[in-house]
Amino acid sequence: MNNFTYSIPTKIHFGKGQIAHLSELRESGEKVLLVYGGGSIKKAGIYDTAMKILKDAGLCVSELSGVEPNPRIESVVKGVGICKEENIDMVLAIGGGSVIDCGKVIAAGACSEEDPWELVLHPEKITAALPIYSVLTLAATGSEMDKFAVISDLKKNEKWGTASEHMKPKMSIMDPEYTYSVSKKQTAAGTADMISHIFENYFTNVSNADVQARFAEGLLKNCFYYGPVALEHPDDYDARANLMWTSSMAINGILSDGAEVAWCVHPMEHELSAFYDITHGEGLAILTPHWMEFALNEATAKKFADYGRNVWNLPMAEDDMETARKAINCTKEFFKDMGLPSTLREVGIDETYFDVMAEKAAAGCKGSYVELTKEDIVHIYENAL
Amino acid sequence: MNNFTYSIPTKIHFGKGQIAHLSELRESGEKVLLVYGGGSIKKAGIYDTAMKILKDAGLCVSELSGVEPNPRIESVVKGVGICKEENIDMVLAIGGGSVIDCGKVIAAGACSEEDPWELVLHPEKITAALPIYSVLTLAATGSEMDKFAVISDLKKNEKWGTASEHMKPKMSIMDPEYTYSVSKKQTAAGTADMISHIFENYFTNVSNADVQARFAEGLLKNCFYYGPVALEHPDDYDARANLMWTSSMAINGILSDGAEVAWCVHPMEHELSAFYDITHGEGLAILTPHWMEFALNEATAKKFADYGRNVWNLPMAEDDMETARKAINCTKEFFKDMGLPSTLREVGIDETYFDVMAEKAAAGCKGSYVELTKEDIVHIYENAL
Repeated sequence: MNNFTYSIPTKIHFGKGQIAHLSELRESGEKVLLVYGGGSIKKAGIYDTAMKILKDAGLCVSELSGVEPNPRIESVVKGVGICKEENIDMVLAIGGGSVIDCGKVIAAGACSEEDPWELVLHPEKITAALPIYSVLTLAATGSEMDKFAVISDLKKNEKWGTASEHMKPKMSIMDPEYTYSVSKKQTAAGTADMISHIFENYFTNVSNADVQARFAEGLLKNCFYYGPVALEHPDDYDARANLMWTSSMAINGILSDGAEVAWCVHPMEHELSAFYDITHGEGLAILTPHWMEFALNEATAKKFADYGRNVWNLPMAEDDMETARKAINCTKEFFKDMGLPSTLREVGIDETYFDVMAEKAAAGCKGSYVELTKEDIVHIYENAL
Repeated sequence: MNNFTYSIPTKIHFGKGQIAHLSELRESGEKVLLVYGGGSIKKAGIYDTAMKILKDAGLCVSELSGVEPNPRIESVVKGVGICKEENIDMVLAIGGGSVIDCGKVIAAGACSEEDPWELVLHPEKITAALPIYSVLTLAATGSEMDKFAVISDLKKNEKWGTASEHMKPKMSIMDPEYTYSVSKKQTAAGTADMISHIFENYFTNVSNADVQARFAEGLLKNCFYYGPVALEHPDDYDARANLMWTSSMAINGILSDGAEVAWCVHPMEHELSAFYDITHGEGLAILTPHWMEFALNEATAKKFADYGRNVWNLPMAEDDMETARKAINCTKEFFKDMGLPSTLREVGIDETYFDVMAEKAAAGCKGSYVELTKEDIVHIYENAL
């Protein structure tokens, strides 16, 4: 196990009706910038409920709506502008990970003289942020409890993650009922996203970080069990609750602290989204089994076999390589059963940009579990076609 | 899953050499009360290292030493006196759970006009506390990252737990190397303590809190795997590290948030320690298998079988009741293999106080997984004789 510093300062109010805790925002001042997406929070009644609680608590609300599924730097710039003009005290993001990511970089940008895109490219330039609050409406990215934000500049085909301790939300509200209306497509993609976060922490070269490894296996079991339940019964509270809490735990640091490793599938997928604006979780579901097949070798077979035995209950006695192959197959079948695409062609991607995407992805996955050259990534893209 | 609020504000610096972070205490002021036990931290060199770092950081240190293994209210009173007389800004506890528990109630008592014993009996009277820091030297109670403290008044044969959000440490240092010198007896007892914390969260009547349940199973696997390794090889870093991190995770709220249940074996054991001043973890190891046998019935067999299958890898296809019995046997054998006592007589306890101890314990375990009357507890004590 590596040395690490654990710090998860975000307070979570989890469960039915917890939105009432929005009144706590009053601790951070008076003026809130409310950030949200395309209006689904209005249809679901969350907007009205939130506004009433905020106003009853004496808060004054400005708004930035229309944040995109792969949030754009233009939205960040707009939000930073509002914060500066109106002396905003805090940011409240209501939505999924994209909205929260956007809110985070707005909060950082509001405290900086830098061009906001600089804060995306150079996380070390983030030296402060307004207090960030969130109400989560989609179980997927874990942004409600972590330091990360991913922002795109689609004009440049760029999609990059940034991170800062300052961007960890102060408080997040997680009401599983708010995810009842999430579509099958987004439920499946969200589940694929959290699975990918777990894998990309689990497949590490740090040996014997076993608290982290056993936790990862437990979270994977939950995804494989509750993902299909949520698809079949969108209003199953326990399925939605377990997926929601899993999504936070997958990336809040509990799995990675002491077991650090660079990610691999995420950087490869970010290129797909940057060039084709596809749904992030779908890209991950397509690439993950092919990354696994590429990464499986004599040296890694034991780890893949652990995954198969501890998560899929494959027999303890069987050969590692055989068990590893079966585990990869289980993963592939799971994504298929969730209705997720399994080839790049299904989401409209061909080989046109493989070369340029692979070059950029290779820069992003230096230090990952199995080293990946640009050529390796092209090979993985080709296998995923 | 129940509604819950998650809040773990403690920052943890985990790993070799992390004691250097003691310089961060400067954030909380200038005057530190250093609380420790019988001097083992001097033998191990931790005392000298800590003093140098504190002084180099410009901190002024007062001391309270001699805190007992089951910390007494007299030590708390003494510490509170020092804090008030010397206008102490913060408390630093260096030691195991007993020392940290003592430091916590001192920190609370320093901010209160109440008799400190009142803060033990009535947690709601704790309304503030000085900032609490700790350096952990024994993996067991999890006090370094939680809100609990257990204090004894042996003159009255009383041992009670208290709890407060205000008593969550601000920062704790966890260096697994500091536990290399822990004796076999204390290593085994500490492991039994954390196992008991995990069980007492795992056996809950809250259904489908599966993030919590899978995490608990993962932590149990770690205890069963690494406990014997640490006994055999006291300086195995990974064994000590995994046990140490497990001990924090067992009780910091991650297992209990959303899966709340009153504990049962701990209240029964606290009476043994209050009347006989025995090692807490040994009492737990003696009582746990007997509690399990008592708690096993048609309604609970499925949960015990889950435990057997997911932690001990017992066959998936076998009958629940059969699997449950095997799982309980595995638990019993594990404690025996760790060299822990398995009968009350071995630790000098006979039936003299069964009645009065059971009466007090019954008050403490209202709302536990399986309801326990005073008579049930006498029955469990008798079986454990």
